Amino acid sequence: MKIEDYKKYVKYTLGEKKSDLVLKNARLIMVQSGEVLEADIAIKDHFIVGIGDYDGREEIDCRGKYISPGFIDSHLHFESTLANPKELVHYASRSGTTTFIADPHEAANVAGLKGIDYILDQTREASGDVYIMAPSCVPCRDGEDTGCLMGADDLSKLLGRSRILGLGEVMDERAVIGCESRMMDKLEIFENRVKDGHAISIEGKDLAAYAMSGILTDHESTEYEYAMMKVRNGMYVHIREGSAARNLEAIVRGIIENKTDISRFTFCTDDKHIEDIQREGHISHNVRKAIGLGLDPLDAYKMASLNPAQCYGLDDLGMLAVGKKANLIILNDMDGVDIDRVMYRGKFIDKVYEGNKNKVDSDLLNSIHIDWFKEEMLAYKSRRYAIGMVEGEILTKLLDLDNDRFEELNLGGKKDQEYEDFGRTISKVAIIERHHNTGKYHVAKVSGYNIKNGAVASSVSHDSHNVIVLGDNDRDMMLAIDKLKEMRGGYVLVEDGHIFDALPLPVMGLMSDLDSERMNETLSRMIKRAHQMGVPKGIEPFIALSFIALPVIPEVRIRTRGLYDVLGDRYLD
Amino acid sequence: MKIEDYKKYVKYTLGEKKSDLVLKNARLIMVQSGEVLEADIAIKDHFIVGIGDYDGREEIDCRGKYISPGFIDSHLHFESTLANPKELVHYASRSGTTTFIADPHEAANVAGLKGIDYILDQTREASGDVYIMAPSCVPCRDGEDTGCLMGADDLSKLLGRSRILGLGEVMDERAVIGCESRMMDKLEIFENRVKDGHAISIEGKDLAAYAMSGILTDHESTEYEYAMMKVRNGMYVHIREGSAARNLEAIVRGIIENKTDISRFTFCTDDKHIEDIQREGHISHNVRKAIGLGLDPLDAYKMASLNPAQCYGLDDLGMLAVGKKANLIILNDMDGVDIDRVMYRGKFIDKVYEGNKNKVDSDLLNSIHIDWFKEEMLAYKSRRYAIGMVEGEILTKLLDLDNDRFEELNLGGKKDQEYEDFGRTISKVAIIERHHNTGKYHVAKVSGYNIKNGAVASSVSHDSHNVIVLGDNDRDMMLAIDKLKEMRGGYVLVEDGHIFDALPLPVMGLMSDLDSERMNETLSRMIKRAHQMGVPKGIEPFIALSFIALPVIPEVRIRTRGLYDVLGDRYLD
Repeated sequence: MKIEDYKKYVKYTLGEKKSDLVLKNARLIMVQSGEVLEADIAIKDHFIVGIGDYDGREEIDCRGKYISPGFIDSHLHFESTLANPKELVHYASRSGTTTFIADPHEAANVAGLKGIDYILDQTREASGDVYIMAPSCVPCRDGEDTGCLMGADDLSKLLGRSRILGLGEVMDERAVIGCESRMMDKLEIFENRVKDGHAISIEGKDLAAYAMSGILTDHESTEYEYAMMKVRNGMYVHIREGSAARNLEAIVRGIIENKTDISRFTFCTDDKHIEDIQREGHISHNVRKAIGLGLDPLDAYKMASLNPAQCYGLDDLGMLAVGKKANLIILNDMDGVDIDRVMYRGKFIDKVYEGNKNKVDSDLLNSIHIDWFKEEMLAYKSRRYAIGMVEGEILTKLLDLDNDRFEELNLGGKKDQEYEDFGRTISKVAIIERHHNTGKYHVAKVSGYNIKNGAVASSVSHDSHNVIVLGDNDRDMMLAIDKLKEMRGGYVLVEDGHIFDALPLPVMGLMSDLDSERMNETLSRMIKRAHQMGVPKGIEPFIALSFIALPVIPEVRIRTRGLYDVLGDRYLD
Repeated sequence: MKIEDYKKYVKYTLGEKKSDLVLKNARLIMVQSGEVLEADIAIKDHFIVGIGDYDGREEIDCRGKYISPGFIDSHLHFESTLANPKELVHYASRSGTTTFIADPHEAANVAGLKGIDYILDQTREASGDVYIMAPSCVPCRDGEDTGCLMGADDLSKLLGRSRILGLGEVMDERAVIGCESRMMDKLEIFENRVKDGHAISIEGKDLAAYAMSGILTDHESTEYEYAMMKVRNGMYVHIREGSAARNLEAIVRGIIENKTDISRFTFCTDDKHIEDIQREGHISHNVRKAIGLGLDPLDAYKMASLNPAQCYGLDDLGMLAVGKKANLIILNDMDGVDIDRVMYRGKFIDKVYEGNKNKVDSDLLNSIHIDWFKEEMLAYKSRRYAIGMVEGEILTKLLDLDNDRFEELNLGGKKDQEYEDFGRTISKVAIIERHHNTGKYHVAKVSGYNIKNGAVASSVSHDSHNVIVLGDNDRDMMLAIDKLKEMRGGYVLVEDGHIFDALPLPVMGLMSDLDSERMNETLSRMIKRAHQMGVPKGIEPFIALSFIALPVIPEVRIRTRGLYDVLGDRYLD
């Protein structure tokens, strides 16, 4: 609390003035002392001004209820939920998350600082505090045709701003360990700030070197033992449980079995969609699941509040104590994390989402520049090699159609038969540069998506978010491209010469301006239909599509400059 | 670690270059993960550059030994040990303390910023890192005749300096809660820094208000329950075990019995003399004693390392991990804290103290200005009231020699007899302003010190450090004053017209320039003789003397402006 505020509020703490609101007789989850204590909480404006015995102008009897500090999501991306950030914050905060530490690197890949400003602007008056980690990997790899590049100079412009906490997930492990100068420059600018990590494949001396650079956190551990390697190197581990990646059970089981000290662990979602938030909660789900697995409830609440506050230096958050922000959760039950009401800055969060009133910069609504692309360009550019998609994974297999290596794919059956099967499922995929009218594009073969008599297109395509289109015939593919262009970004599904349905994502081609209910309805219909058209159950049609171009995950990807062998770092025929 | 350093050292971490020194096969006390792991530690220059399997140019086999991060003393004063700060650091670091968070408020009371610079200068090349908390309470109370005052403006000059961590112990609780503007100004300047507390008498709403001001730590808890009140208010509790105040057992027993989360607890000494350090250790003694009481050893080591590092934002300390400073302790035994060798910044600390080579500013050696004081001034100024000293306490009782209240003193016997007993033990005490030749002094009566046929004098006299002299006759008192003046400060014991012995403390009249062995020898002789001359066993002659003038502890004190009723905030006859 600032001293200016202190002088204003100390009279309420001393009981000399009555607070506006007192929550009476609650059982307080005191994560700082590891106790549950029965007491009143006095609230004035944004702050907790008293804990003990207080009277207020308004009093709410909380006998039998618990109160926890608001939860902190220590790492998430708004963009990948497709929803408006303010709306996402609304639903997540209704589930108890009142602080969000976000990395806006999708927006930055499309629109640079303007993209980051969009996230900041949209969440300025949201029902939770949104802090930003400045994206460290824009582009994610050299040679990408992104909308914007962010070098050390661009990042330094963010340094002084109040909601910028530090440097976002450093995905390029090799650049760190190899002391590549562009990476060193970025780390140096953020020398005295928190730097988030993303260590997915390194161990031992490499991991130690990565940590020694000052990278403090990581959220990519899928196993307990890998998480502990990071903790031993002095890092914090954000235990991830989102819509897709679900690592909590493995790590929390390890913590329980080994009676591990939880002080270096926090929770995050990374990516969690509104429908999943509504169904099972947000960080509340992490806490509930951890307790369900047998973690001490006080530890679980601490990992969701004080630990991340400490990790990110958010001194005004993370516990129920005087002077902290009145971000808190009233619970009917502690172990089940059964939430009654949630308070953010001293006000209860409304049941109803009020909608986005913040204006969007017109540039951000006009980010799809592909007028130059014509149907005849859909002819194959790469013929010999193909991208082999794998159900339930985002990694891909490199297929050589001349010298097949299908055994590795475990497609079943004997080899000749496999080849034949494979031949029947080849689709065409095209990536089209959409940011700067450079005219760059590529067309190649993909196996495993299996769409029949139709096409899908998306302007969400990690990490550079060029337009990606996939189908089994050029006419439907071109129709999808035209519709996407007309909508200024989004998802399109075309079936047999007509648009089955389309989800507009006009904000940078990444996010919706619809409310989430309408969005989810449309999306569900499209996904269901895509599966009916042949897309295997193990492949989520639009998410899988959005990863086909990501050049940092093995083995093969389509890029605007050609078909790319990730491990070999080279372009293929 | 700075990125500049990272680029230099990462090759050692990766094993591409051989480190200068590798400690092989040790059992590492990993406070960050709560484990003991067997591994090598590679050290290059000041840093730990590798943990795992390493070869070095020099290798030390540590099989069977333990290695802990260096200990942190989260709160201490150098001045009250009388020793040179560098020497104190030497002995404490030999006992495993490699980081010292010091409040130089005695030096500041005498010499302001110059006094603080003295502590900084002396410890610049010491065998431990010394950080400074800027003194918040100079003077400790209005109306004190100190050498210097330190207002918000003076403190702001310290803000930008690298070893200044925050604001020193805020002793004036009422000024905080009452929002007195001079205190608010100081707190505001250090708004984004750690602020140390000193809460000794406040609870409930008052304590909450005190904590809400942003004061983060406290080291004055003598009981577990009072410590927990502070933790609940979001504070860190430094568990004190020094030469005089020993609070560890009470608090640690509470932690063990209640299975309390230890993450908000650290250790400190506050004041610990070199002879005690040599006898039982420094923070190592806190750790050993805590483990002896039954605390989990890993918790005890964490409270001595990672917890204080986290509290004070010392990110390069507090755990064994790559990139941290190579401040570490090699132990023969973990539970007994049996120390083999100690390393500071990658070098083993020598057995022998090398002595103080840093020049002392001549002003600081010339701080006793009492030429104007003459023997005839030793006539009583206050006659009716007296200071009643109490054995084993620093608080005093206010005695009214006309209307005695001796029953409260529990001196035993019936009232008339008590009065008579008391009458026989009345001594004379004088305080003489020594900083600015103001000519202020006072002479009053004191009971309970009982010195016969002699006098003691001291230039250490909390917190303003004016000259204090106490005796049963004016001649001996004046002799003591003259000797003290000649030595430019120190302790003097006069017996029957001659100087029994004297300890020079010429540095600001507070600290010795002798080596500690000679100092201790002299001091022991003087203390022993003073007891023989009548000072009761429960009164340490020079420490008790140094507190007679401290105007913040009840009930009555002698000040340069008169005899002072602390609780009534008024001067007495």
